[in-house]
Amino acid sequence: MNMKTAYVHGYLPREARRLYDQADTLAPLLHAGTAYPAGSWVLEVGCGVGAQTVYLARNSPRARIVAVDHSEESLAQARAYLREQEPDADVTWRTADLLHLPFKEAEFDHIFACFVLEHLWEPGKALATLRRLLRPGGTLTVIEGDHGSAVFHPDSPHAHEVIGHQVRLQAAAGGNALLGRELQPLLSGAGFGNVVIRPRTVYADRTRPALVDGFTRNTFIAMVEAVRDDALGIGLTTAADWDRGITDLRRAAEDDGTFHYTFFKAVAVNPMS
Amino acid sequence: MNMKTAYVHGYLPREARRLYDQADTLAPLLHAGTAYPAGSWVLEVGCGVGAQTVYLARNSPRARIVAVDHSEESLAQARAYLREQEPDADVTWRTADLLHLPFKEAEFDHIFACFVLEHLWEPGKALATLRRLLRPGGTLTVIEGDHGSAVFHPDSPHAHEVIGHQVRLQAAAGGNALLGRELQPLLSGAGFGNVVIRPRTVYADRTRPALVDGFTRNTFIAMVEAVRDDALGIGLTTAADWDRGITDLRRAAEDDGTFHYTFFKAVAVNPMS
Repeated sequence: MNMKTAYVHGYLPREARRLYDQADTLAPLLHAGTAYPAGSWVLEVGCGVGAQTVYLARNSPRARIVAVDHSEESLAQARAYLREQEPDADVTWRTADLLHLPFKEAEFDHIFACFVLEHLWEPGKALATLRRLLRPGGTLTVIEGDHGSAVFHPDSPHAHEVIGHQVRLQAAAGGNALLGRELQPLLSGAGFGNVVIRPRTVYADRTRPALVDGFTRNTFIAMVEAVRDDALGIGLTTAADWDRGITDLRRAAEDDGTFHYTFFKAVAVNPMS
Repeated sequence: MNMKTAYVHGYLPREARRLYDQADTLAPLLHAGTAYPAGSWVLEVGCGVGAQTVYLARNSPRARIVAVDHSEESLAQARAYLREQEPDADVTWRTADLLHLPFKEAEFDHIFACFVLEHLWEPGKALATLRRLLRPGGTLTVIEGDHGSAVFHPDSPHAHEVIGHQVRLQAAAGGNALLGRELQPLLSGAGFGNVVIRPRTVYADRTRPALVDGFTRNTFIAMVEAVRDDALGIGLTTAADWDRGITDLRRAAEDDGTFHYTFFKAVAVNPMS
């Protein structure tokens, strides 16, 4: 899931806190089923401030995790967070660009990437690169959202319009906020085998107030709201139309509102040659 | 899920067969968790040709089922189907209109309604009527789709346009193809308590060929295709635009395509007074 402002400013403690809270809200859903054996080498790409790394470490306490990000500041934050949350975790931190990773072929048993491919201009190329770092038989796990899956009540074309602006801005930045639905052909096309996609959905209504707050308000709506200045700045919309859309979207978090969103989790295997 | 043609012509063996096949595809998903105790009185409203009734009977073999539909022809078909599939089932068949049901207050322990509310002009009114037929503490189970939840690859505005025509036609007929997202406020508003909504999603790609055929092609796309003549007849679209949208939608069922759809299953309780 794109959280543009948060992503860019992940090194600010306050923004990092927001990312950690969002990860805590979604972790039971997204990390279920992901646990790596003791001693296995696991590469996490695009670890950012470590919001997912902490769950990798927690669920695979004896795996050897190598976490990579292009931002030194994010990594510093991630390191501090893991020291606080999982002091015994075996994590090595590396600064590197996703397309120029400093690793040898077949160096890893498993690779994990959450909310990373959606930011890339050529996700298929990145996947092919990652596959070469996996031993034959090793697995890749990818998690992505898809903003086209957002279903909410009350429905509103104005609310869909502001979500659409977020999608357009992410596309203009070279990313894809509708990537979840494409994981199967993307991973297959990059040479992975046994590509299995499992949708993981979040549904929030008044019976689940923690999700209404943690997901509808503080994750999804907050993420859309974060691009307001960009959307107005390039003339995608007017302040009045933007505010109308956001006001409508917020109704999904009120007492009679509902919100449903789908993440797509893919697990695939680097074939034995 | 609206299957307009099939619904209207449910008494034709061939159309009925299509409905049974669709129900068989979805039953593991939709009926999971629905089983009623021995001896309990269960009302199924809008049973049609018995496509869901057979699963109610199978999963609750000792419940006493009363299945109601407004169409005598559908009921004849349903009766024949149950006799063939579940000859020992305890099912009583009744012809009646949903808003004028020939039952006493608090007569039933449980009520089940699948793909029924979406056809009603005033679903809230129908729910309030149904609630009076339940004993205090009795449960209502409702299952509805939501066409706004359809996410597919390759994405296509033309394909979304034809789905939109289906939604518009259903609305023009007094129904609502986007009802799934509204179940929480609808049931709460009708006086039910403990309203719990569970999304049940279908995801089909090349690794699940039976679902690509059974759901993407023969349920969802077939349902949209069934309204072609109506859409052209009232000038919603042109033949060329329609065919372009359907052609695009069919790509979701091809080798590199994906399709994701969400049903909403609600279980609610008639409060102890």
